[in-house]
Amino acid sequence: MKSNLWITEKQTEDLLISFRVKETLHEEQTDFQHLALVDTYTYGRMLFLDNCVMTSIKEEFVYHEMITLVALNTHPHPEHVLVIGGGDGGAIREIVKHPKVKTATLVEIDGKVVKYSQKYLPEIAAALHNPKVTVLLDDGIKHIKENKNKYDVIIIDSTDPVGPAEGLFAADFYENVYEALREEGIMVAQTESPFLEKDQELIKNIHEELQKLYPIVKLYLAYIPVYPTGMWSFTLASKKHDPLQVRSEDIAETNTRYYNKNIHFAAFALPNFVADLFKRKERAKAVEAVK
Amino acid sequence: MKSNLWITEKQTEDLLISFRVKETLHEEQTDFQHLALVDTYTYGRMLFLDNCVMTSIKEEFVYHEMITLVALNTHPHPEHVLVIGGGDGGAIREIVKHPKVKTATLVEIDGKVVKYSQKYLPEIAAALHNPKVTVLLDDGIKHIKENKNKYDVIIIDSTDPVGPAEGLFAADFYENVYEALREEGIMVAQTESPFLEKDQELIKNIHEELQKLYPIVKLYLAYIPVYPTGMWSFTLASKKHDPLQVRSEDIAETNTRYYNKNIHFAAFALPNFVADLFKRKERAKAVEAVK
Repeated sequence: MKSNLWITEKQTEDLLISFRVKETLHEEQTDFQHLALVDTYTYGRMLFLDNCVMTSIKEEFVYHEMITLVALNTHPHPEHVLVIGGGDGGAIREIVKHPKVKTATLVEIDGKVVKYSQKYLPEIAAALHNPKVTVLLDDGIKHIKENKNKYDVIIIDSTDPVGPAEGLFAADFYENVYEALREEGIMVAQTESPFLEKDQELIKNIHEELQKLYPIVKLYLAYIPVYPTGMWSFTLASKKHDPLQVRSEDIAETNTRYYNKNIHFAAFALPNFVADLFKRKERAKAVEAVK
Repeated sequence: MKSNLWITEKQTEDLLISFRVKETLHEEQTDFQHLALVDTYTYGRMLFLDNCVMTSIKEEFVYHEMITLVALNTHPHPEHVLVIGGGDGGAIREIVKHPKVKTATLVEIDGKVVKYSQKYLPEIAAALHNPKVTVLLDDGIKHIKENKNKYDVIIIDSTDPVGPAEGLFAADFYENVYEALREEGIMVAQTESPFLEKDQELIKNIHEELQKLYPIVKLYLAYIPVYPTGMWSFTLASKKHDPLQVRSEDIAETNTRYYNKNIHFAAFALPNFVADLFKRKERAKAVEAVK
């Protein structure tokens, strides 16, 4: 008989998701956040930070492929790649699979996330000991400030914009990311769900901030079943290369479970209500300019 | 202060979603199923049948546009359209917006779904009194058996494959749908979530049954936040016209919030793990044939 133990995430004040638990593996208050690892029936082992689902064994491939491979296949020579956050190692695992990558650097503020991911999510943390990888237990904001013109691709694999990740959604952080990128650099950030009103403002603001810095800024989507609404967005900003101008035959075939050549392009096809987030913003700016 | 009243759907034995309730509007056991209408904070008014979410005011547009407009824009002259189930009227509302549609017939087994949708979900049921529309309170399986060579497009807008909708997922029902369609006919069915193991078998079986009847069978996807995992599938089967061969300029511009020309094509871009559902089946068949 199955246990009647459930772990619940309050996705918003008015929306809950609950997973039936097989076993609680580890729980502690780190220096930065509350960390929990639990084994669930639906999604296998799951990592929670501050009571929000970060990832799960069964569907982590979607998030980790989609936050990395779109940019890696847009940049013609993504040799030096940085991940801010992402201490579980999933983004790093996808990055080192790419044939053109020479170095992958992970800057995670909370060493406990790395430690317990290696212990309980070894499939996700698999590449953290790869010779191409450097793991720095440091503040991503500080690292970005101190490194200029260094990376080809920067992935901002943050938690929600509250708590330790708040600074990763700020305008001055994005300016420093721009400077940390080399000439043809590309950045990608996870930018929450377009279905939730509280996230729509965030998505619009990030888009606007990035448009001040980069000629190419685009939102793309992926299905992430453990995140609120299941529709998740990523914002890509690029100094030179447009992800929609990539030649299909140049997309590297890595061993993927979600991403492929069709998905690379289809992920940028936005439903009207999502595309309208930016149009409304542009209309509002036009009205403001006329005044 | 908000109420602490929640309505919970057991999406699987091991996965719950809960919506904070503003007000319960109506609840009854009909002759066919348990019906509930509740007003929620996140998604507004919602319809539940047998404790499963059917639709909500805030995001119903995704399901209703996507179950209808892909087929309507693939068929060169979708004049006569049938909806099986869908008593809330949302599919019908999208169908009658299409400029080429002359008649739209709704066959819903449970009159209470129609009655209470008209009362509490008027935005969704809006077109049920349109002069092009005929509402029949009847068994869809019987209607399909009794009508041959009659419809250009048939939409199977069913509940989950348990309870009253079980027969809408059976092989003989699909044979009758084929015969109810005219020469260039197209059918679409909602076919659950590719993320859930229990649904993967269903998706594969329906695909295989339809391939026995139609030269063109394709799965497509949409983001439906109130359904399990948020990734929902539809299976389209067509006697002649391929949805991917449609000319973009032939797609009718109806007033939509999700569907557009890009989405028409992008919805068919399947993640590897979804595309593999069919490949495994085909490999298994090849092995079987070799034996």
